[in-house]
Amino acid sequence: MKLEILPVLGIGHVSEGDDLAALIATAAPWLRDGDVLVVTSKIVSKAEGRLVDVPADGPERQAARDEVLAAETARVVASRGTTRIVQTHHGFVMATAGIDASNVDKTRLVLLPKDPDASARALRTALRERFDRDVAVIVSDTMGRPWRNGLTDVALGVAGMDAIRDHRGEFDPYGNELQVTQMAVVDELAAAGELIKGKIDQVPVAVVRGYLTATSDGGAGASALVRDAAQDLFSLGTAEARAAGLAAAATLPDGPGPTPADPAAIQRAIDAVADVVAPGTVFTLVADDVRAGLVAAVPGWPQEATALVLGSPPTPVDPSDLVRFGADLHRLRIALAVEGIPSVLLPPPSASTASAALAL
Amino acid sequence: MKLEILPVLGIGHVSEGDDLAALIATAAPWLRDGDVLVVTSKIVSKAEGRLVDVPADGPERQAARDEVLAAETARVVASRGTTRIVQTHHGFVMATAGIDASNVDKTRLVLLPKDPDASARALRTALRERFDRDVAVIVSDTMGRPWRNGLTDVALGVAGMDAIRDHRGEFDPYGNELQVTQMAVVDELAAAGELIKGKIDQVPVAVVRGYLTATSDGGAGASALVRDAAQDLFSLGTAEARAAGLAAAATLPDGPGPTPADPAAIQRAIDAVADVVAPGTVFTLVADDVRAGLVAAVPGWPQEATALVLGSPPTPVDPSDLVRFGADLHRLRIALAVEGIPSVLLPPPSASTASAALAL
Repeated sequence: MKLEILPVLGIGHVSEGDDLAALIATAAPWLRDGDVLVVTSKIVSKAEGRLVDVPADGPERQAARDEVLAAETARVVASRGTTRIVQTHHGFVMATAGIDASNVDKTRLVLLPKDPDASARALRTALRERFDRDVAVIVSDTMGRPWRNGLTDVALGVAGMDAIRDHRGEFDPYGNELQVTQMAVVDELAAAGELIKGKIDQVPVAVVRGYLTATSDGGAGASALVRDAAQDLFSLGTAEARAAGLAAAATLPDGPGPTPADPAAIQRAIDAVADVVAPGTVFTLVADDVRAGLVAAVPGWPQEATALVLGSPPTPVDPSDLVRFGADLHRLRIALAVEGIPSVLLPPPSASTASAALAL
Repeated sequence: MKLEILPVLGIGHVSEGDDLAALIATAAPWLRDGDVLVVTSKIVSKAEGRLVDVPADGPERQAARDEVLAAETARVVASRGTTRIVQTHHGFVMATAGIDASNVDKTRLVLLPKDPDASARALRTALRERFDRDVAVIVSDTMGRPWRNGLTDVALGVAGMDAIRDHRGEFDPYGNELQVTQMAVVDELAAAGELIKGKIDQVPVAVVRGYLTATSDGGAGASALVRDAAQDLFSLGTAEARAAGLAAAATLPDGPGPTPADPAAIQRAIDAVADVVAPGTVFTLVADDVRAGLVAAVPGWPQEATALVLGSPPTPVDPSDLVRFGADLHRLRIALAVEGIPSVLLPPPSASTASAALAL
């Protein structure tokens, strides 16, 4: 048993309206049933007319590129300098939304295919119906990734096979159940195809032979590879997420009222701000009712039944100390939020001399 | 021209101290010079004795696993529930530091090889010197990745070839210089090897034939693929980075003093907190000297020469208003930090009735 990776030579330049199935069938009359075609997305885009005209240079070119990028972007994931990592409308997270200026006239940009799974299905259908070849089709593109230098080719679209090979529920020879073994085989096939495409200039299609025993329809396509941002531990760039945390602290909302809270977590919050609050400020954990509330009060203000923490600014209290004390209370509220503890700044009892109250 | 991916059959179970080069040379007498061996890291680890004993089940097993994970972890990158994405001492970012409990006795865990590049070099050297085969060696493992479901195999170590194929500086047929075309070919070779290893149970070694015309020494190994955390836009999980931003707001340090600042950015910061500060609070941008500073003052406190923003709490001012005003000033300071503008809470002039000052 072995696999072969074969280049499809002689396809040449592809233009809008070209019949990709005919180009491939003509260039590769040796195609066999069960072959996996790995087709560079760029020629799919070109055949489908996914091109936009832009100025060849100057600031107008940059402005036009920015406009195209905005149109292709569902959300910005991370930025640094001129780098933009975005999620496309397909759900792919890619630099510059996969927009490419290479292997095309200087006055045009190539966008990703509108629906790469549909493109793969259309090509598979055309090859089967018009050229009697039952093959799987992968539409591939080159992507970077976090944590590792260098790019690899991955699948944007697939037809004729499942995107994922699932080993969950199988057992190894030692009797251990395989847990996390959903392999993104179409990405591995795209990578394998790139090995031969990258060795030979201008080869946009590779064939992997021997991997499939038979094609199959009905898979979810490469869209099965798109992980929902809500499920992803890295849905935002580090700098962007950090800024979002800062911004959340600036607009920290009031908590929902008394909430169970862990005294150790409250103490961690107090400790976290200990070195930055005004010297002499005291936050005292009242540990006998941790579900109650948090009160930050100046001396003389009676402890409420809801008190969890008593806070006092330095004495003697003068008006400017109270301003600083307010800033320090907000620091403590944020530190509580880091621990997952909501709080609220309450107006003091009307009879008190001066105070503020935070309630969990 | 074509590539072939061949399985090395008959290697069987590998144990500590086994001679991997001999096992492979015996199982694959058909190896040729220039072949690329893709070797599953697990058999390298086993041969090198990178195994630890753990209880077969119960809380003791979990505690032992946690201890092993901590030892293999250089830093935690992201957590959710029981999932731990960590950076290993090698620099790889992987779930559970690549520690594996599959294909091994229930009482043992397999760690990654200590130095996978060195393991690859040693295997390459042994095959060349003792078995007269000049091959490149990739030590591979299975990894997940952000944004895309499913796992793929990538390279942990390599010898006999460069990890990256660099096209930078080349030109495409349209005259465009190729910019971002450093391909992580060893990851693609590892993925290609997995295609055949995954199809056949218990095949830990694959051979990619036809990719290299000749091997070469002196490359930086797969460590060239490790991107420094400081260079990475995703060096921390989103939740972790967001919490770091919150925590930074709680301990916001004093800025270095008067700093040039963009009035529009200051206005954005004021606008960002407009809906959460006490009704009646006014922050006024004094736009005639944007390099000066930020003063937040109660009425009657003279505007300093450094004033950039005048702030006033609602009038009439009573002591509890001052506490709230202090909290609101800290909100504004954080919003300024989001805009990259440092600030400091200054003591007011001694003659003033009550105030606080923020200086950029």
